[in-house]
Amino acid sequence: MTPSELLAPDELAARLRAIGEERYHHRHPFHLLMHEGKLTRGQLQAWALNRFYYQSQIPVKDALVLSRSNDPEFRRLWRKRIVDHDGTAAGDGGIERWVRLAEATGLSRERVESGREVLPATRYAVNAYLELVSRKSFLESVASSLTEMFSRDLIALRMDRLRQHYPWLEPGLAYFQARLTQGPEDARFALDWVTRHARTRAEQELAMDALRAKCDILWAQLDALYFAYVTPGWPPPGAFRMEGQ
Amino acid sequence: MTPSELLAPDELAARLRAIGEERYHHRHPFHLLMHEGKLTRGQLQAWALNRFYYQSQIPVKDALVLSRSNDPEFRRLWRKRIVDHDGTAAGDGGIERWVRLAEATGLSRERVESGREVLPATRYAVNAYLELVSRKSFLESVASSLTEMFSRDLIALRMDRLRQHYPWLEPGLAYFQARLTQGPEDARFALDWVTRHARTRAEQELAMDALRAKCDILWAQLDALYFAYVTPGWPPPGAFRMEGQ
Repeated sequence: MTPSELLAPDELAARLRAIGEERYHHRHPFHLLMHEGKLTRGQLQAWALNRFYYQSQIPVKDALVLSRSNDPEFRRLWRKRIVDHDGTAAGDGGIERWVRLAEATGLSRERVESGREVLPATRYAVNAYLELVSRKSFLESVASSLTEMFSRDLIALRMDRLRQHYPWLEPGLAYFQARLTQGPEDARFALDWVTRHARTRAEQELAMDALRAKCDILWAQLDALYFAYVTPGWPPPGAFRMEGQ
Repeated sequence: MTPSELLAPDELAARLRAIGEERYHHRHPFHLLMHEGKLTRGQLQAWALNRFYYQSQIPVKDALVLSRSNDPEFRRLWRKRIVDHDGTAAGDGGIERWVRLAEATGLSRERVESGREVLPATRYAVNAYLELVSRKSFLESVASSLTEMFSRDLIALRMDRLRQHYPWLEPGLAYFQARLTQGPEDARFALDWVTRHARTRAEQELAMDALRAKCDILWAQLDALYFAYVTPGWPPPGAFRMEGQ
């Protein structure tokens, strides 16, 4: 049975952080290998190529969230996320910066942008995110973005380790540099909004479940990468294959 | 560029069968282990528990297809699929028979039906099937069912091997027995329908792509099982764990 007492804002924030500690993908073995310098160039290519599909759908996801709000103030603030990813002109924005990261791994822009070699499991997980923000309550849609509470620490660590272990990736790191400031801004707004709009304990529990669901979506993408390109290393028919395999 | 000449019915059927030969999940390593008698009871439990989610959504999928048809004759014939899975009374039908298979592995009905321990990746792949039949063309929705062209051979082999290697599963095999006749009936109707309604080469190509997409959905479910319960054997946070692990 769901407990009935409303959590104080600090307690809600603490529980959300505990969910991240347990389920956010900073703990995933694929990221651990990355940060230990144990991934090959081919494995980093598979990561960049698959994660591009996630990046490419973020403004779609944010437009779906935006489309569900009748509050111009909320929409003005949420719009920032779309601007961050799509930029203000061609050649600008987070998606473009991710393409440059993928190019730094040695993939061509065309190959990445086409999406042809993306793992089906990546597509299913990302599309589950679009479904979540389309079909769940508006509160849950916003709460699913709270993984940004944990992204800064992961990105700071990742930039340090990528520079150390894969210095040839340096020309591609602008994406992460920008996210160091964008992510925490987004997280502060979303946490404040969720705290104010989850007005019952049942709603607070829904917000926590939405964060768990989003962690699952990120985790599943790395499970699929690990299975296809690390151990046992079996990409499904039609998906990206590493050179020499 | 898409070729433009219409394929003759026999040639279309041959190409669909070639897609199955390459991509249907009879070739998946998880099934190969199953048929060689190399899965543990815990791994068979994980399979039955996850595959239950797929089974449970089949009538939902078929209702979505049915809802898109304005042809009473098509709807009457397609309705059979829903009857096959939901039965004509409580305790009847394919979903109920799958529960009994899961019970034969040693899981409780409640644990299976709750869906609590299903892998997120299973859920995403199955929901991708619901999305496919909701959003793609009606032709593609019907064509995605053509994996039934290949199911009889797989099920016949599986029944033989399950009896040989896991005789304690015998009380759970009624599901497969029923599918031996239901699947081929469904496949004949769907193949005939697709052959008559794919009237251009472009439509024939869409039908073939829909079959590939469905094969990917089945394949991804077994990839997720293999990763979580065979090698490396890492179920994500919150998912089913085998006893003794």
